[in-house]
Amino acid sequence: MNSNQLLTKVNDYLGALGYPATPELLYRPVEYALEAGGKRLRPVFVLMSYGLFADDYDVAMPCAAAVEVFHNFTLLHDDIMDNAPLRRGRPTVWNRWGENVAILSGDAMIISSYSLLAKAPAPLLQPIMECFNRVAMQVCEGQQYDMDFESRQTVAESEYINMIALKTSVLFEGAIEIGAILGGADAENIARLKEFALEFGLAFQLQDDLLDSYGDSRLGKSVGGDILEGKKTYLMISALNAATPEEREILCTNHRNESLTAEQKIARTLEIFNRYDVKRKTEDEINRRFAKALAALSQVEARAEALAELRVFVEGLMGRDK
Amino acid sequence: MNSNQLLTKVNDYLGALGYPATPELLYRPVEYALEAGGKRLRPVFVLMSYGLFADDYDVAMPCAAAVEVFHNFTLLHDDIMDNAPLRRGRPTVWNRWGENVAILSGDAMIISSYSLLAKAPAPLLQPIMECFNRVAMQVCEGQQYDMDFESRQTVAESEYINMIALKTSVLFEGAIEIGAILGGADAENIARLKEFALEFGLAFQLQDDLLDSYGDSRLGKSVGGDILEGKKTYLMISALNAATPEEREILCTNHRNESLTAEQKIARTLEIFNRYDVKRKTEDEINRRFAKALAALSQVEARAEALAELRVFVEGLMGRDK
Repeated sequence: MNSNQLLTKVNDYLGALGYPATPELLYRPVEYALEAGGKRLRPVFVLMSYGLFADDYDVAMPCAAAVEVFHNFTLLHDDIMDNAPLRRGRPTVWNRWGENVAILSGDAMIISSYSLLAKAPAPLLQPIMECFNRVAMQVCEGQQYDMDFESRQTVAESEYINMIALKTSVLFEGAIEIGAILGGADAENIARLKEFALEFGLAFQLQDDLLDSYGDSRLGKSVGGDILEGKKTYLMISALNAATPEEREILCTNHRNESLTAEQKIARTLEIFNRYDVKRKTEDEINRRFAKALAALSQVEARAEALAELRVFVEGLMGRDK
Repeated sequence: MNSNQLLTKVNDYLGALGYPATPELLYRPVEYALEAGGKRLRPVFVLMSYGLFADDYDVAMPCAAAVEVFHNFTLLHDDIMDNAPLRRGRPTVWNRWGENVAILSGDAMIISSYSLLAKAPAPLLQPIMECFNRVAMQVCEGQQYDMDFESRQTVAESEYINMIALKTSVLFEGAIEIGAILGGADAENIARLKEFALEFGLAFQLQDDLLDSYGDSRLGKSVGGDILEGKKTYLMISALNAATPEEREILCTNHRNESLTAEQKIARTLEIFNRYDVKRKTEDEINRRFAKALAALSQVEARAEALAELRVFVEGLMGRDK
């Protein structure tokens, strides 16, 4: 099945989970968070990875949903920590129901994700749990490093790459690994798929950073949000590490400068980004990572059609399908 | 082994878990929360239940620790929601490190509890996960009902019993069930043990409510804390349901009355409690529940010595060992 067919399966399955009616303030926010949609990349990755080796997708559905519920839990709690008022155009859970409800319904989502995971075929449950637990803890580590970096003036590029690997890539890696375990892949194929997922995840996150500052009309995203929040993206870190003390001062304080309009803030930051060529540097890094991902994928021995569909899917996500 | 020997084993195991060094703000609060101690009732219950049917306690240690780590996660997040500054005489995690750190390190503790659970013998992992997931979700439900009740003037006694069953008893039930599964108990013994644990948990929580208002010099706990917080305990709910509208007004607003000293607040509330004989009513309910617990326990077919030790342990917890 191609990614669109699998996305439909994922949405159908998530929509039919059927949380209890009460207590309302525990379960309605969980449903609200899950119905917000999004691209469902992680569960689709579970299913596409599974599809490389097997074809009874129903076997893999609960684990695919588990990964998506876990991902949405992280967004829910991150939004409290980041004080984010909106997600996908709607009020965040803490903003709509208050912080206590958001904390507790997030907790319920973690537990819900493990309830789904427990539906894996019994002989595979232990390796799947080990993968999921390792990845889940790494995601927490990534979030903590991300918060740590906020209060630091400089962050080494390697520290940043490690942080986004933990916060973003490892959940792609876990999704791909769990799908492969469920499909019965051998250790060598699993190792290649993990390398593919890790490098793809990094390329994907770096592209996200790039598009936020330099835009992509195809996606219709507004440009400069990260700059206005003073976020330490790959571009910001590259610029900070190259900048003079005066420029560094501008990059660090610009977003809090009340005498500037939003457009002026964005323009001032982009001017320094451009001075140090961080756009090209970021594109180079994206290309290098994505090439490594595809090289690892090409080493996987699996059903040819499913392999081609996975390749088409990730090329689409990286905008290489034009 | 008796409960004291098992407590030592639990503390040794928890002390040797060895969380990573970094990120510091993720893992130090986890260790801080776990080293606070407490009676470790839940892991001791896992081990004592296991000991009814088997004797290689090392098999049950990771699951015992999982239940304790989960319990401490609930305390950590509840303390944020309740705005509680102290726990066991020390600053709570949110109070010491801030709310964001408390949210995220609590999340890490849930995941850590599942990592421990995954060390269960592979053939038993699925039933153990199912039990743990069911119980974990019920604990969240109980916490939500508890918060819901804060803003209500009256709560039916049955609603209160249901809430403390979810918030407190089911984790005892889960601890006992997981120990029994690990020990290889049959379905009938598991059912009797679950009834025992549920009724014991209710008796234990009701006793906690009672001691907070009427004290017990053996425990050295200060008296009246629940009254000063305006908490809806079993005693408060019994009094509210019997009281006149004027008395109800006093019970509901007394703790916020700034013209009264703490002693006066406690005295005014206890006067109404005494008028409706809620102390005796609560004692009756405790005795009824605990008798049901012991009756269920006496139906369990298991190693006689271990059964006697479990009975001695719960009698001690209920102050019946004098």
